Amino acid sequence: MSKYQVHFSNLGLKVPVEKGTSLLTAAWLAGVNLRSECNGKGICGKCRVLIHEFKDTGHKSSNHKFFVEEELRQGWRLACEIEIDCDLKVTVPKASRDMGAVIRKSYTHREIELKPFVRRFYLDLPPFEAHHGTGMWEQCAAILRHKYKMEEPVISPTAMIRLSNLAGRNVPPLEAFVSQNQQVICIRRKKDRPMLGLAVDIGTTSLAAYLGDLDNNRILAADSVLNPQVVYGGDVLSRISLIQERPEMLAFLQQSVLQAVNGLIVNMTESVGANPDDIVDVTVVGNTTMHHLFLGLNPEALGKYPFIPTIKTAQYVRSSLLGLNVNPGAHIYMFPVFSAYVGADTIGVRIAEQFHEQEIMKLIMDIGTNGELVLGSNNRSFCTSVATGPAFEGAQIKFGMRAAPGAIEKLSIDPKTLDVEYTVIPSPGEKETNTRRPVGICGSGIFSAVAELLKAGIIMENGAFDKSKKHARIRQEKGSKKYEFVLAFSEQSGLDADITICQDDVRAVQLGKSALLAGAQILMQHAGIEEPDEIILAGAFGSYIDIDDAITIGLVPHCPRGKIYAVGNAAGDGARMALFNWDFREKAQRFEEETEFIALSGTDKFQDVLVKAMKFPRYAYL
Amino acid sequence: MSKYQVHFSNLGLKVPVEKGTSLLTAAWLAGVNLRSECNGKGICGKCRVLIHEFKDTGHKSSNHKFFVEEELRQGWRLACEIEIDCDLKVTVPKASRDMGAVIRKSYTHREIELKPFVRRFYLDLPPFEAHHGTGMWEQCAAILRHKYKMEEPVISPTAMIRLSNLAGRNVPPLEAFVSQNQQVICIRRKKDRPMLGLAVDIGTTSLAAYLGDLDNNRILAADSVLNPQVVYGGDVLSRISLIQERPEMLAFLQQSVLQAVNGLIVNMTESVGANPDDIVDVTVVGNTTMHHLFLGLNPEALGKYPFIPTIKTAQYVRSSLLGLNVNPGAHIYMFPVFSAYVGADTIGVRIAEQFHEQEIMKLIMDIGTNGELVLGSNNRSFCTSVATGPAFEGAQIKFGMRAAPGAIEKLSIDPKTLDVEYTVIPSPGEKETNTRRPVGICGSGIFSAVAELLKAGIIMENGAFDKSKKHARIRQEKGSKKYEFVLAFSEQSGLDADITICQDDVRAVQLGKSALLAGAQILMQHAGIEEPDEIILAGAFGSYIDIDDAITIGLVPHCPRGKIYAVGNAAGDGARMALFNWDFREKAQRFEEETEFIALSGTDKFQDVLVKAMKFPRYAYL
Ligand code: FES
Ligand code: FES
Repeated sequence: MSKYQVHFSNLGLKVPVEKGTSLLTAAWLAGVNLRSECNGKGICGKCRVLIHEFKDTGHKSSNHKFFVEEELRQGWRLACEIEIDCDLKVTVPKASRDMGAVIRKSYTHREIELKPFVRRFYLDLPPFEAHHGTGMWEQCAAILRHKYKMEEPVISPTAMIRLSNLAGRNVPPLEAFVSQNQQVICIRRKKDRPMLGLAVDIGTTSLAAYLGDLDNNRILAADSVLNPQVVYGGDVLSRISLIQERPEMLAFLQQSVLQAVNGLIVNMTESVGANPDDIVDVTVVGNTTMHHLFLGLNPEALGKYPFIPTIKTAQYVRSSLLGLNVNPGAHIYMFPVFSAYVGADTIGVRIAEQFHEQEIMKLIMDIGTNGELVLGSNNRSFCTSVATGPAFEGAQIKFGMRAAPGAIEKLSIDPKTLDVEYTVIPSPGEKETNTRRPVGICGSGIFSAVAELLKAGIIMENGAFDKSKKHARIRQEKGSKKYEFVLAFSEQSGLDADITICQDDVRAVQLGKSALLAGAQILMQHAGIEEPDEIILAGAFGSYIDIDDAITIGLVPHCPRGKIYAVGNAAGDGARMALFNWDFREKAQRFEEETEFIALSGTDKFQDVLVKAMKFPRYAYL
Repeated sequence: MSKYQVHFSNLGLKVPVEKGTSLLTAAWLAGVNLRSECNGKGICGKCRVLIHEFKDTGHKSSNHKFFVEEELRQGWRLACEIEIDCDLKVTVPKASRDMGAVIRKSYTHREIELKPFVRRFYLDLPPFEAHHGTGMWEQCAAILRHKYKMEEPVISPTAMIRLSNLAGRNVPPLEAFVSQNQQVICIRRKKDRPMLGLAVDIGTTSLAAYLGDLDNNRILAADSVLNPQVVYGGDVLSRISLIQERPEMLAFLQQSVLQAVNGLIVNMTESVGANPDDIVDVTVVGNTTMHHLFLGLNPEALGKYPFIPTIKTAQYVRSSLLGLNVNPGAHIYMFPVFSAYVGADTIGVRIAEQFHEQEIMKLIMDIGTNGELVLGSNNRSFCTSVATGPAFEGAQIKFGMRAAPGAIEKLSIDPKTLDVEYTVIPSPGEKETNTRRPVGICGSGIFSAVAELLKAGIIMENGAFDKSKKHARIRQEKGSKKYEFVLAFSEQSGLDADITICQDDVRAVQLGKSALLAGAQILMQHAGIEEPDEIILAGAFGSYIDIDDAITIGLVPHCPRGKIYAVGNAAGDGARMALFNWDFREKAQRFEEETEFIALSGTDKFQDVLVKAMKFPRYAYL
């Protein structure tokens, strides 16, 4: 295979790639955070780059949509449309780079009974004599059996190695960490140190970790970081295709997450004066692709029909196998997953929401680029997943962007004057949110915009702009008959352009919301109910959407306003609960087994429901 | 710490060492196979080296025993007596290098019922549909449960990873390898390949491995190699002290054995057209130190009173954890050990000798630098270990050497003429054994010599030379009043000197044999028997000693001649049996639990018995 070199000159990054690799992939490989909200389909227009000394060998028509002739002549192209067949020198403008999402996973405290998976026992070994004819481990095992009433304690290989360093005639007081299945995961000199656990929530965009004290049911530290896989694709599908194209990237993506989690571990243990070795138990929750990548499982089958996970049931994997920087004997509890697109985080939500104790029918809508829906109570439940389309992450939206500094996250339109007020996500240091000039709209901002357009009567029940409205902000897009609404004129924006929301943007939201609503309705039909008793909005996106906006645009089925909740990082809550009390692990497994998966795609019924769900609700307040 | 460089100039090897390291250790670290039969005690005189530009800072008196003044002036020294405190340039003469022991572990075929620990099952998965809502593993598990009646199959992490590469709508026919504890260790595309097992015998001096076909109870290949740890010390104690001095050497010694076994695996699988991945089960037997080093356990406590093993019970360790080149999901079965000096190989012998089925009292004498003794029948047994002293490996014997080419391994003395005939170990290629000039005597040769000296009346019952005998071969040692007997005059020897056996050599043998005999007698007292029904001579040395010599010198307690057997590599036999039929593993564990260890060292009783055992038997044929 010929190898070419791509030089991202203004960033000082170089990467060798094989002939035919797309320039977008090359950027990911080089670690360039090139925007790609449509994941290289040539439709979001975010991946603009300038290619120096460009040999024009023709270009795809899609480029015409995003560049004028002059720009094309200069060498401007969509990176995802370039197949590399020579060495390239490329400039990546600031606007094409992802400036880092704001991580807003928060931590909710929930009272639960302490029942950790790992327990600590103190061992005082009598001095050894030659005629005893016993071994170190056999002596420890005898104490565990007689004093602590274990039936058949076994020892892990890493614990054995440590024990060998303590062997001798007089052994200092020891502490043994023993998991519920009677496996001794560590024996060490007795130290007056805490016994810690780690709960990890692996999101597509961000990783959150919590350090818990297993002796007294307290969270000692919490930290989060951008999922480093983000530079290899904003959503799970782009990461899956990257691996399909370059199988060696699997190990790389796995390592990048493990290293990031290791970094969080070092930060958190340091901050509380503990040691990674004190972490003797770990729970991990994540969507199915994140789950597979964490374990090093090839995720390709998740990306194509019929969307097969390699494994659904909960697993215990020894930390030393993955290289996680905790006690080497610790087991990592991987939450089960429901299906390719209903993942471990949904189970985390279910646990956190205590389905198992309640008879009322709850609907969980876990919303990201993918919608995971679960409807159920303590004795039956149904789940499904729907593609929400890229609107929910800002892709395919003209001025869409991630929830990063500069994004409009909330707005209001005065129904009389059509004046717009908005709040913009500040940079981590910034306090004021209104002083920053907007550069785009993030997911919650888009919903807010659509809801406000509806309330102001600018768009109608069917999603079309009301052409009878006349206002400077309402206009036809350049070179198109389609309407758009100006949220911020270029004077106020941080771009050299007006920030608008256009007819196609509204359609994208309409598609996403209808998929979610239709999915929920199908589950309700299966459950034989008219409406759920409660609705929980969760997930990367669901937890930030304004509940009133969700009602306004009809994203949720009918349910009393007071019974709709947005939860923070409920997946993380689930992981923490299973850390402090391992009964929740058995419950998670029971959910996995008892929940019926309802496949939607391709069924006629779903199409019917979907078409009806397209309509926006008739806005009652006008 | 100051670091000095030692340059073994004639071998082109260099090594940096810390101040105070002995030159012998430096040689081991550099990979020089320097002889050291007494393990650095300054008594074997084998570790002679020439130090260039020697700054004489005084030397220990022991050097006077082995060098004349002129040699000392030139820079000749015992490497073990030099503590390094400057850079050194050293020549290692050929005579001081170990030319590689001859590996004579042989393979005995034993008929046993086939009952492997791992079984293979074929899985035909139906095409997946989205609405099935199942995962790859869950589908496989369902087949294992329903078709093959397993209750709770679980999957290993490495098997999961492989399975992920096979995931998709239509899955090819699969084969699952499942261990007895219902763990799926590997799932792969169905191949028409054998299902193989590996039995490994880790000896202090050599490694032997056997490749078995688990489908039809056949050994397909056998191979052996010198234990590469030999360059770091000829016996277990020297390796233990090396690790004590330089803890980082533990991983190094472990790796060296693992790599050597991996080499055997590649050779054997290649020779039968198989693949290391086809090896799905492994059994490993070895003495306690080899067992600990193989697992990476710190062996220090084995080397000092009260001689504590870290672990005695049998263990299963996953191959991927150790980096053994077999199927990554395979478990390695580590035989249990009895005590620091009664190891897994003794258990291997017991299995091979089928103690568990017999009521007669068998005495196993596993003889190496250490004697491991087990006396028992199917319902009770006792074990102990005795230090045989270095005579048994050729150390402390004037012309002693390992069982390497050039060693006298057997001889006879004409009682009338006192003419000597001997057989010499040939080089691997050589056919004729009598044409090679001898350069020393190996263990079996020494026993043969002492037995012949006794039969010829040259030495007496108490071990002393009969001074009344006059013959050219019987003389006083130069500069000493002590007697010696010439086995080969310099004209016939491959050295520039007569090869003799001296009074001290006889004493060394006498000490060793008395320790063994006394140990056996103590066990017999414990068992309340007068004599064993059968005696099995085994071990690195025991299997090569001539049974008649053993009787002649009184190494074995009284027992009919026809009931004394020398077995080949019985430890390896045990490993193979446990590979083909895992019932033997349970039996091994039962032995470990039921055998009573009798500590001898320091007991008055042992001293009494030992003194009586010193005498050689009155030789009846004279
Ligand atoms: S990634 Fe290139 S257009 Fe979207
Ligand atoms: S090793 Fe130096 S004298 Fe034996």
